[in-house]
Amino acid sequence: MPHRYLNLTPLPEALAILRREFPSPGRAESVPLREAVGRVTAEPLYARYSVPVADIAKFDGYAVKSGETRGAQDQRPLPLAGYARVNTGEVLPQPFDAVVMIEDTWDEDGIPRIRKSAAPGQHIRRAGEDVRAGELVLPKGHRIRPFDIGALATYGIDRVSVRSVRVGIVPTGSDLVPLGTAPGPGQTIETNTLMAEAYLTGNGATCRRYGIVPDDTGLIREAVETAIAENDIVILSAGSSAGTRDFSRDVVEDLGGIVFHGIAVRPGKTVLLANVGGKPVLGMPGYPVAAQTVLREVAGSLLSWWGLSPVPCGELDVRLARRLASDLGFDEFVPVSVGRVDGTCWATPHPRGSGIQMAVVRANGYLYIPAGREGIEEGEEVRVRLTVPPASITRTLVCVGRRDPVLGELGNLLAEAGYHLHCCNASTVGAVLALQAKTCHAATVALPETASAWDDQVLRYLPDVDLLRVPVARTEFGIASADPLDPGSLASLRVANRPKSAAAQFLLDSWLDREGIDVSPSGVPADARVCSALEAREAGLRFTSIGCESCDLVIREELAADEGIAALIEAVRSPEFCAYLHSIGRASGDGDAPGVSSA
Amino acid sequence: MPHRYLNLTPLPEALAILRREFPSPGRAESVPLREAVGRVTAEPLYARYSVPVADIAKFDGYAVKSGETRGAQDQRPLPLAGYARVNTGEVLPQPFDAVVMIEDTWDEDGIPRIRKSAAPGQHIRRAGEDVRAGELVLPKGHRIRPFDIGALATYGIDRVSVRSVRVGIVPTGSDLVPLGTAPGPGQTIETNTLMAEAYLTGNGATCRRYGIVPDDTGLIREAVETAIAENDIVILSAGSSAGTRDFSRDVVEDLGGIVFHGIAVRPGKTVLLANVGGKPVLGMPGYPVAAQTVLREVAGSLLSWWGLSPVPCGELDVRLARRLASDLGFDEFVPVSVGRVDGTCWATPHPRGSGIQMAVVRANGYLYIPAGREGIEEGEEVRVRLTVPPASITRTLVCVGRRDPVLGELGNLLAEAGYHLHCCNASTVGAVLALQAKTCHAATVALPETASAWDDQVLRYLPDVDLLRVPVARTEFGIASADPLDPGSLASLRVANRPKSAAAQFLLDSWLDREGIDVSPSGVPADARVCSALEAREAGLRFTSIGCESCDLVIREELAADEGIAALIEAVRSPEFCAYLHSIGRASGDGDAPGVSSA
Repeated sequence: MPHRYLNLTPLPEALAILRREFPSPGRAESVPLREAVGRVTAEPLYARYSVPVADIAKFDGYAVKSGETRGAQDQRPLPLAGYARVNTGEVLPQPFDAVVMIEDTWDEDGIPRIRKSAAPGQHIRRAGEDVRAGELVLPKGHRIRPFDIGALATYGIDRVSVRSVRVGIVPTGSDLVPLGTAPGPGQTIETNTLMAEAYLTGNGATCRRYGIVPDDTGLIREAVETAIAENDIVILSAGSSAGTRDFSRDVVEDLGGIVFHGIAVRPGKTVLLANVGGKPVLGMPGYPVAAQTVLREVAGSLLSWWGLSPVPCGELDVRLARRLASDLGFDEFVPVSVGRVDGTCWATPHPRGSGIQMAVVRANGYLYIPAGREGIEEGEEVRVRLTVPPASITRTLVCVGRRDPVLGELGNLLAEAGYHLHCCNASTVGAVLALQAKTCHAATVALPETASAWDDQVLRYLPDVDLLRVPVARTEFGIASADPLDPGSLASLRVANRPKSAAAQFLLDSWLDREGIDVSPSGVPADARVCSALEAREAGLRFTSIGCESCDLVIREELAADEGIAALIEAVRSPEFCAYLHSIGRASGDGDAPGVSSA
Repeated sequence: MPHRYLNLTPLPEALAILRREFPSPGRAESVPLREAVGRVTAEPLYARYSVPVADIAKFDGYAVKSGETRGAQDQRPLPLAGYARVNTGEVLPQPFDAVVMIEDTWDEDGIPRIRKSAAPGQHIRRAGEDVRAGELVLPKGHRIRPFDIGALATYGIDRVSVRSVRVGIVPTGSDLVPLGTAPGPGQTIETNTLMAEAYLTGNGATCRRYGIVPDDTGLIREAVETAIAENDIVILSAGSSAGTRDFSRDVVEDLGGIVFHGIAVRPGKTVLLANVGGKPVLGMPGYPVAAQTVLREVAGSLLSWWGLSPVPCGELDVRLARRLASDLGFDEFVPVSVGRVDGTCWATPHPRGSGIQMAVVRANGYLYIPAGREGIEEGEEVRVRLTVPPASITRTLVCVGRRDPVLGELGNLLAEAGYHLHCCNASTVGAVLALQAKTCHAATVALPETASAWDDQVLRYLPDVDLLRVPVARTEFGIASADPLDPGSLASLRVANRPKSAAAQFLLDSWLDREGIDVSPSGVPADARVCSALEAREAGLRFTSIGCESCDLVIREELAADEGIAALIEAVRSPEFCAYLHSIGRASGDGDAPGVSSA
């Protein structure tokens, strides 16, 4: 029988259990200083000797006895009596007690002369001025910064005892193949353990990835036993789904005991935690975004309680660009793109599917909806944890609407100018509302090229706003068929598909209407299909045009002078972008197309 | 003749020259995906195939034809006609078009039954739902995050072309010895190149450290030529002082040309920039804090213009705890400790000596005083760049006043409780003023144990503040001598030194006064010296007590309940701290001392 998650543990409770049940193993290792950056000190570090070890000269010049320089004046220069030439950093020779800078002297008959007496101790760095032997340099629990390395080396410390947590990561699943293999039908590239290794290493853990273990209770048991013996924590990847491949649960239940199975968190619900010989075994969900939540919120929290120091992530208080619903009782994490529009930072959510990794790749942060909330309203202030440097937000451009693949190239062009283009998918209505609420830098709308589409679908919602419309690309739609369409028998034409684009759908409906064609019931064998001119050409089919869709960038005039938005407009209008469109067989926004012909 | 820095280039101008003169070498290298975290993409990355490749089941259950499930109702369950068992992630077999979750079925006579019809496409992940083949995954110039690794692997990308800058780091100086060597007289451990390597590697550069080159024009020339041939930028360490060891300047002047020598920045003034064969050679000052400025502001800026992405540093707007003077015309950087006291963040400056690395180790950030400012006033808002995670500031405790070495152990005890203790040196007056202005969590004052010291030196400045005084440690001072002091000849006693501690000085003066001893002129041979009982004991000398100094923690009563301050008080009063004091032969604040005896 498949297992069910009848008792979902609330996230805060799950974390409290984890913390209580698994105290820090307190492991430390000694590493050479050069490898210590980013590691956390396990013991306090003390200076081995004083720096400087003795009194030293602060400048190039002459070591003198200050008493012998008394009386030197501008009007009454004095030759130096006893002196020694010293360079910056050299130990002050006995019996001198001051340094005269070389710039403050001149030679006459080979003897340096001065115009000013030297005070005792002048231009001398006292022994121990920087640090005294035995003085504390770094307390325990300190994350070593790059510049700490120089100080530690200076104070004679060449090895450091740092905290260490060993994480064993075990991928399980007969369908998994390693990265670099071309996956066959029903096979999946094993990627979650790579991601886990990258994330947990960044959090200061010492990770060890094991080979893929097929769905076999004996083999999984063996792998878990080995990993538990060699590590402080074990992560099983894809071992917590409720399907027929759910062998991991039985294995860890048998080896130790289940602490919890299922947390009230989205994504990431199917997490499993077991205790095997006093060590935690964490079963990570197979869906990558769910796995990320578990790595971040569960494994990451444990590493932090165990004294490792995660790479800091910036936080930003922003406004939510559109309402987000959320189920009561579930802590939820939502990837968002944050951008600053006209002085206000807005977070636009990406899709929440736990298999949609691109949402996280496209996002520059994520927000947290606590279990007690049924959702967050549009315009509400929320705190976003950033996955990019905070400073990059001011150079982020958020476009809402049609995510035409050509926007990727725009992103590349903008990256050259130092901007980050974030495209968030939305319908035309969604894009227009974002423009209205000023939550995005630009909207991308795809409209049929008819007399009224712009007025009907855009302008009527923004009557008082001056808009700038920048054509991005045009797509010609039509009917593709093996043989030329017979004008005489159009009425009986059966079209195989309904186009995905609303604009193409509108064009099709208008054409059918214009030609007096009845829509045939679905499921009936078809003579023709709706597609773009490019698709028809690539498929070698005859093509009857039904009209064009225009994908435009729409910008509020008042913001068009904004440096980032100006760069965006420039990129769209650039010869590079036009050349790119032609290279992929697309028509640029002004209709200039590379040899697209209608049948 | 030694070189002078007659024409200091302003920092902004120096950076503009650097950027103009040295465009990005545009180097890229291909690395395996696992090594790509933190690197910056040199080319855009596109998905190799669609994910999912085909329509797949979202849940464990049965693949069905949706048409055949029509009519199933709670009151009229339906056995499934044609179906196939599928697990989460499996490709949907032909000719099915929907999935029924196993939880929504039950078996009867081996045939699964349903109570609800399935909609077409139900519980199916469509091919390309996550990403479509050829779609842009990451634009160029993107710093790869740990979770990006999972997505890239999923989309078939197993190698990545990333930007690369090769930095050659050459230490020069006959006085230098490598880390791990015990430095002899006049020798210095070579540490700046280690620090440079740690810092620039963290900024994404590929560093190569060369061996120490002694002060020899020919050898330096050879080293520079090799490094220039093998790298995109060369950093010469300690090659820019104006002393007799200044060979580097001559070498790079000869090999190419000096771009500038000397920048109006503190610390870091003596930086040298040369152009050798179109590549920059940066001469870094020998003083470590000056070297840090040059690494951060000059080398770091160049790497960032060349498209590398530094580890983000947090910024915080805080108030300056005490006035900082600064010379007009110099950009200046000052290490500070930031802490939040009663809701306001304050930055307390550390000493600015360019040889005082401990100031940077102790600090958690630094602030920038632009060249146009003559200083920053106390209480003025300033922006601090943090060298620690921003979140750690709320767990930072700032103590101002006497930096007794025993505070190091307090820091260790507080680290256990998750707090960071920052001790900033100040006189008793400075500490009291910080307490008055509420810019610190606690003051540490060292007072002679007399009837009036507390009133005179603390209370009179804080008449309206309720204070809590927590004894930290006591030190007994006295006169150490080889033979017992003769009470009859005390009047002719010659004391060798004046104590550094103001409290001990006060005790000495009172004692001399009490005993009717005239202060002897300095420089006269001495019979005795002032020191602590511990020092006398360790030196095996006779000891005549002159009184005790008490080092106390002083806290505003109103803040004593603050969680962090409570932890600090608890640490001072803990048995662990008392045991520590005894272990080093110090007396605890309440006078409990480990066998200190007066002569």
